Amino acid sequence: MLRQDLDLAWMLQYENIAWYEDGKVYILDRRIYPIDVKKVVCNNHREVAAAIKDMVTQSAGPYVAAAMGMALAAHECAGRSETDQIDYLTKAAHTISHARPTTTWRMQKITEECLNAAKDALKFGIQDVSEAVRDLAIDQSNRRYEGIGKTGKYLADLFPEKGAIMTQCFAETIVGMMLREAKKQRKDIRIFCPETRPYFQGSRLTATVCRDMGFDVTVITDNMPAAVMKNEGIDLFTSAADVICCDGHVVNKVGTYQIAIAAKYHGVPYYVSGTPDQGHPTVDTVKIEMRDPEFVLQAMGVPTANQYVKGYYPAFDITPPELVSGVVTDQGVLSPYRLYEYNGVKDQFLV
Amino acid sequence: MLRQDLDLAWMLQYENIAWYEDGKVYILDRRIYPIDVKKVVCNNHREVAAAIKDMVTQSAGPYVAAAMGMALAAHECAGRSETDQIDYLTKAAHTISHARPTTTWRMQKITEECLNAAKDALKFGIQDVSEAVRDLAIDQSNRRYEGIGKTGKYLADLFPEKGAIMTQCFAETIVGMMLREAKKQRKDIRIFCPETRPYFQGSRLTATVCRDMGFDVTVITDNMPAAVMKNEGIDLFTSAADVICCDGHVVNKVGTYQIAIAAKYHGVPYYVSGTPDQGHPTVDTVKIEMRDPEFVLQAMGVPTANQYVKGYYPAFDITPPELVSGVVTDQGVLSPYRLYEYNGVKDQFLV
Repeated sequence: MLRQDLDLAWMLQYENIAWYEDGKVYILDRRIYPIDVKKVVCNNHREVAAAIKDMVTQSAGPYVAAAMGMALAAHECAGRSETDQIDYLTKAAHTISHARPTTTWRMQKITEECLNAAKDALKFGIQDVSEAVRDLAIDQSNRRYEGIGKTGKYLADLFPEKGAIMTQCFAETIVGMMLREAKKQRKDIRIFCPETRPYFQGSRLTATVCRDMGFDVTVITDNMPAAVMKNEGIDLFTSAADVICCDGHVVNKVGTYQIAIAAKYHGVPYYVSGTPDQGHPTVDTVKIEMRDPEFVLQAMGVPTANQYVKGYYPAFDITPPELVSGVVTDQGVLSPYRLYEYNGVKDQFLV
Repeated sequence: MLRQDLDLAWMLQYENIAWYEDGKVYILDRRIYPIDVKKVVCNNHREVAAAIKDMVTQSAGPYVAAAMGMALAAHECAGRSETDQIDYLTKAAHTISHARPTTTWRMQKITEECLNAAKDALKFGIQDVSEAVRDLAIDQSNRRYEGIGKTGKYLADLFPEKGAIMTQCFAETIVGMMLREAKKQRKDIRIFCPETRPYFQGSRLTATVCRDMGFDVTVITDNMPAAVMKNEGIDLFTSAADVICCDGHVVNKVGTYQIAIAAKYHGVPYYVSGTPDQGHPTVDTVKIEMRDPEFVLQAMGVPTANQYVKGYYPAFDITPPELVSGVVTDQGVLSPYRLYEYNGVKDQFLV
């Protein structure tokens, strides 16, 4: 229902994330969007897991892709015995949810729910339960959007009537919801988007969404946030998170930590949106993904360094609670030190 | 003399910066080096000023190019009356030294010295004084290298016996001298170079120089310095400066400020090398160059953002003295609050 009152631009984004249809999953390739609009076609659930691992999709994208991947897995084993199908789907859930180490817990919750939907459909004697799983995937998305809609409102409430905010990386759903709410509240907001190397999610994706929604948006390189805070006056820094540990540590795209330090230095509040991740009671369970260092030695596919030079590419960094002004959830704004006040974590897949 | 005992790799860099010969100035195009090794050919001193403005050369490059541009200007007016030549060269000095606003004072010192060398040569009845000016340009470079050699030693003295340092942007001469000295002192140093968007001076230039000199060098994107300080343990952050104001404010490539804030947060000392700039008694006289915002919306010539999105490109940022652990000069390491202790500013063109 919520989908129907979304802005057109926003709906187009939504439609484009990932979709199961007739034995294939189509995922919008966010690595090249919007310079080029292409879809990665996955012919089986392993290809979906590989696409998630390879960063074809980001923000809420991996969660949608995971569920659509489960629908595809259901199609792959259609017609086999009930036990065989359940066995096949259990293995597929494991493959998909382990595509990226940092978000395994949330992925397990999503694929487990898909598995249960498949089991229910199998009980009714349906041979190919892929459509039942896709229906569940859509339902998951709608629930996610509903929660994120509330979070977006709490975030927009924090904006000044007129001012400037800074984002980090790409958080499609929450950025869209937050701006939709800011518009509704008639807040006059300029947005600064650091470009987010090496994949340029900030310049390619976040800036495009902000622009599509009618906001004044400025792209900066990743070495400029502190200078912009000093020169232009930023009122608020906000990002989503790949993981918000229950002890208030925030795991998000590398660079978040550095901007949070600069924000603290300039007295700019940093609000992270999302929900506490029960898979990470403390930061000690977080394993930072190290990605292919070669990506750091190129930009948009063009080499940027001598071939004998090394790269270094931690996908995420960790921002400690002392740098976090508040965790904005669908239940309100919590202190990073009091995340145990958040209820109902289990069913939330906010990103 | 000093040049003769430089390492081969280093000499090659030196030779390549800028050179006057037979009515032309050749400037190594640092915007594409080392991916492509090309020289920009300037047919008159206005083209030299334009090349300096357009960032064809960096670090000490603009100073060498400015003096070589004066040699070319001398060639342009060769054979005219003494008064006419002096008039022509005075105007050329103005054009060249105002190519970039931030470094005007140093540029004026350099072009003024060239003008005086031309006047001396004209007194001897020489018709084309371009070679006399070029000799002066070489002499200026040698003096600069001698001063920077001392600075490099003071810097390397600050390195641990074994550890990791972080640089920012490209400071060819001082990086070379510092590493040459570190090698002499047998210090076991790993170097992390942030790539320095939008021009990638860090990944293209600094990393290449470090690698050519035999060091373990790792390129990181500009959103990673804080994460690297946290994860890898950085012992020292160092940069050169476009301007060191006499009140201890450091004007350098955008990003320096942000890394200095992160360094302070992690207890990592930040040492800037150079000399106090008498043209800037306080930070109030500094005018930050705003460059073409389009550069922020591309990487290596490839667009990175939606065409309707804005960019923002301050060339420099300003790091206050509270974030500066020391100013490393050819006379030793000074507190940023005590730069009046530095003598003989006038003849120093350290960068």
